[in-house]
Amino acid sequence: MSDDLRTLEQFLHAKIPLTRAMQLRVVDDEEHCFAIVAPVAANVNHLGTAFGGSIGVIATLAGYSFLWLLLRDRGAEVIVRETTTQFLRPVRESIRAICLRPNDEKIAVFSTSFDRDGRATITLTTRVVENGRTAAEFRGVFVARRQGLSPAA
Amino acid sequence: MSDDLRTLEQFLHAKIPLTRAMQLRVVDDEEHCFAIVAPVAANVNHLGTAFGGSIGVIATLAGYSFLWLLLRDRGAEVIVRETTTQFLRPVRESIRAICLRPNDEKIAVFSTSFDRDGRATITLTTRVVENGRTAAEFRGVFVARRQGLSPAA
Repeated sequence: MSDDLRTLEQFLHAKIPLTRAMQLRVVDDEEHCFAIVAPVAANVNHLGTAFGGSIGVIATLAGYSFLWLLLRDRGAEVIVRETTTQFLRPVRESIRAICLRPNDEKIAVFSTSFDRDGRATITLTTRVVENGRTAAEFRGVFVARRQGLSPAA
Repeated sequence: MSDDLRTLEQFLHAKIPLTRAMQLRVVDDEEHCFAIVAPVAANVNHLGTAFGGSIGVIATLAGYSFLWLLLRDRGAEVIVRETTTQFLRPVRESIRAICLRPNDEKIAVFSTSFDRDGRATITLTTRVVENGRTAAEFRGVFVARRQGLSPAA
């Protein structure tokens, strides 16, 4: 695993303690660079499958982590503004979320806005997959702002 | 606190262990019958406020719990199909979610469908409030189905 991913996992465990209770990990993913994973055993619901709340958290953190990796060392705080999650099928063993990389133009616009205005917004799609099938589809609006900038700015 | 709410809290803690790590509680609420609450301390994020993932979980469980109370002793399994959460302002001390009660007609249609078909769908709105202000607004599509009925039915 790359140092970046290891640092990201340590950051999440340190700053968002719930991720430890969820046994969340950041792992390599061949196609999508990284994935956020957690065992169903630590995230089970009343039906013995993955708790929808945990699926939502993992899907959110896949998007958050994409921006963390994109903006690290640039003094950004990332928050989530709005999320939509569709739960398509039960997850039985492992919750694994990947973030679909936006096209280069979208990333350039976001990155330029952040550098220029100290604030930028982007919509990311993440997907929870198991055995090659999509179990949940997530769309999140994320805001990056320069550290110390007023939340209202 | 009523026996129903105590039983509900015990159910959540037993069946969804993550709720224990979140220090989630079910409490009386004068206007909305009950609220789902959890301290920010156990659900903190990288900014020292409530983690958006935890807010989403608490908001989801407020809707789930409304249906659990409505359908208990009627052999229902409740799952969540789709959720949308808008994060409007930071939560600083306590995450508290209430479920807005749908009107009587909507509840009657849902309840009758469940009794007749063993399956019914309802959209619920829940709200996370702190100091009298809405911090997050949640809309969830929930499906109740008779225990043992095929998920695809």
